[in-house]
Amino acid sequence: MSKTLAVNAGSSSLKFQLLEMPAEKVIAKGQVERIGLDEGIFTLKFNGEKTEFTKEFPDHRAAIEEMLRQFSEKEVVTDLSEITGVGHRVVAGGEWFNKSVVVDDEVLEKIHRLAAYAPLHNPANAAGIETFRELLPDALSVAVFDTAFHQTMPRENYLYSLPYEYYTKYGARKYGAHGTSHRYVAERTAEILDKPLEDLKLITLHLGAGASITAIKDGKSFDTSMGFTPLAGVTMATRSGDVDPSLIYYIQEREGLSNEEMLYILNNKSGLLGISTLSSDMRDLEDVQETNEHAKLALDIFIDRVARYIGQYIVELGGVDAITFTAGIGENAYEDRQLIIDRLNFMGIKLDEEANKVRGQERIISAADSTAAVLAVPTNEELEIARDVEMLKKNNGR
Amino acid sequence: MSKTLAVNAGSSSLKFQLLEMPAEKVIAKGQVERIGLDEGIFTLKFNGEKTEFTKEFPDHRAAIEEMLRQFSEKEVVTDLSEITGVGHRVVAGGEWFNKSVVVDDEVLEKIHRLAAYAPLHNPANAAGIETFRELLPDALSVAVFDTAFHQTMPRENYLYSLPYEYYTKYGARKYGAHGTSHRYVAERTAEILDKPLEDLKLITLHLGAGASITAIKDGKSFDTSMGFTPLAGVTMATRSGDVDPSLIYYIQEREGLSNEEMLYILNNKSGLLGISTLSSDMRDLEDVQETNEHAKLALDIFIDRVARYIGQYIVELGGVDAITFTAGIGENAYEDRQLIIDRLNFMGIKLDEEANKVRGQERIISAADSTAAVLAVPTNEELEIARDVEMLKKNNGR
Repeated sequence: MSKTLAVNAGSSSLKFQLLEMPAEKVIAKGQVERIGLDEGIFTLKFNGEKTEFTKEFPDHRAAIEEMLRQFSEKEVVTDLSEITGVGHRVVAGGEWFNKSVVVDDEVLEKIHRLAAYAPLHNPANAAGIETFRELLPDALSVAVFDTAFHQTMPRENYLYSLPYEYYTKYGARKYGAHGTSHRYVAERTAEILDKPLEDLKLITLHLGAGASITAIKDGKSFDTSMGFTPLAGVTMATRSGDVDPSLIYYIQEREGLSNEEMLYILNNKSGLLGISTLSSDMRDLEDVQETNEHAKLALDIFIDRVARYIGQYIVELGGVDAITFTAGIGENAYEDRQLIIDRLNFMGIKLDEEANKVRGQERIISAADSTAAVLAVPTNEELEIARDVEMLKKNNGR
Repeated sequence: MSKTLAVNAGSSSLKFQLLEMPAEKVIAKGQVERIGLDEGIFTLKFNGEKTEFTKEFPDHRAAIEEMLRQFSEKEVVTDLSEITGVGHRVVAGGEWFNKSVVVDDEVLEKIHRLAAYAPLHNPANAAGIETFRELLPDALSVAVFDTAFHQTMPRENYLYSLPYEYYTKYGARKYGAHGTSHRYVAERTAEILDKPLEDLKLITLHLGAGASITAIKDGKSFDTSMGFTPLAGVTMATRSGDVDPSLIYYIQEREGLSNEEMLYILNNKSGLLGISTLSSDMRDLEDVQETNEHAKLALDIFIDRVARYIGQYIVELGGVDAITFTAGIGENAYEDRQLIIDRLNFMGIKLDEEANKVRGQERIISAADSTAAVLAVPTNEELEIARDVEMLKKNNGR
């Protein structure tokens, strides 16, 4: 038995989970928020107890040092050397990484270079990796890429209809995101249905503040709704999803906005927040939708865009065996699941209303006579990361 | 009986068709190309004869005067007063026009103001209208808007997931295009199937150099693939269709392109031309696809994007009764129709291979046991324009 740490380092945050492997048991988890800001927040859950305090964390190194200090102090571990592997979520892996890899200097250099594709995320991911390699030098360091799962998409699905030279010169193509989540729920779906994943035509819906939809064929990502960046695809909490590019230029001109300012609006002021003018949170909108026309409109558009992508992917896959909901909205918002699947009733796909009403629990929610299975599966990216670390440990004779 | 002229004035061209109404018989048709350039080309087909010559046409007025002179000279009409109506195609009608209207000064003023949405087209359309009002003052002048048919789209389909104020301030929404064509083939589809249009769930595919796909419900446009402008939607001859907006900014930055330059590339250097690096013409690509990987890729992407939109719209409509192909590619490229509909075989929609091979002729091309009818219907925007003129003549007591 050994302990593996799954790490997700954002630009101003660090989420972590310590797992006993291969038992797949969560030992402790927590996060550090507001890194680099005046007052940071540290949270740790261990042994049924929650530790929370504020403190200044000037950088990721300070946050990680605090985490390791708390691990020792609270006796999460007897000795830090028990942590034999650290798996890091990395947002952009480009075309260089189609699976998780052990981090060496070359890999680290590539992660830095891929910052062009994820300017807010990859530098933070790299900073986390560098610090852990220094503070836990004996632990195997593994990079798990958000884009890796989607590297199996065929060329006609990942290429845009742009001058081809932009692909060869700049890697201008669809990379997708949430790959670790889509992969995890796809595997769970196959296990729950007791069928080989390779035999399933599957559509996975990762619906959270960020949302993406993936078509999975032969066990591999075949297409996904996010694009070159996570801006594209369906309506999200604050992201626009797909928009006619001409319109964006038109708005920029009218409003006198730079490209950078417009991109900020598309990422942070659009989506549910932009349409509703109220909130980016689905729950807030659901609370007032009976009386607030804008809230209702935002919800209608969200449901519509998700249903449309399912329609696209059913055609791309040539049918569908299972549809799986995951992430915050996907796991909990049963009304939304109902509204989305109701759109597919005409093709015989339907929910079991009672089964659908359970929240946050792994299960089949389709009716017995539905022509495709529908599932709700809480995602577990940390576990998927720890599994990759475990596998790479074995491959590396550790 | 009276004669009606259907006019399509582009930025450097003028297409015209003279019809005997209500008999719907084409008397003459032709075009003037390269208006405003050093050497223009005039073409007229009348009585089985074709007249073609080159001449300088400094502006639309010169082109129209030449056309009327040729009408008299070739005895297309005995007197110009026989032309009792002129219907003009207008590209952008915004939210002001949901149907064809008789042009008065106020309408003309609005067409000018809508140039913000179609800067290349509306000014030319307006110039055509103004000249005809002057030269044929007794003919009823009618504006037929490309966007009008799509004004029935529900709000959740025409709104983007952008800050709502851009809609109220700038009319930032989906307008669609090719409305006259979609409307014409929808009507013909209902007639051929001998069913009321209102009862059909219909998907019309206008596939030409510009391509758009429309979902029609209750006889009305319910959704369409083009957006704020005709750039959005499927892969076209030289237009990109849908692209992640972040990628566009990324390319701009790398290439040092202004918004205007990038927009030009998206409209004129992308699509089939951009991917293939060879040609924007489907036929050129089909000729070499066996040996040229890029040509094959461009065709594969085109088929894929069209099939995806059909999938979306089948879900939006909650099923489909008929799918109708029209325009250059839609009417003639039977291999493409086959490839597109093959993607829908899994839902029981299939072609009759032999019926499908006929070119350019109105007919049902689906197999007898197909779960939805598939048709090929040559479009006839000129006739639809003439019909609108005829209807407005009656409504105006002429």
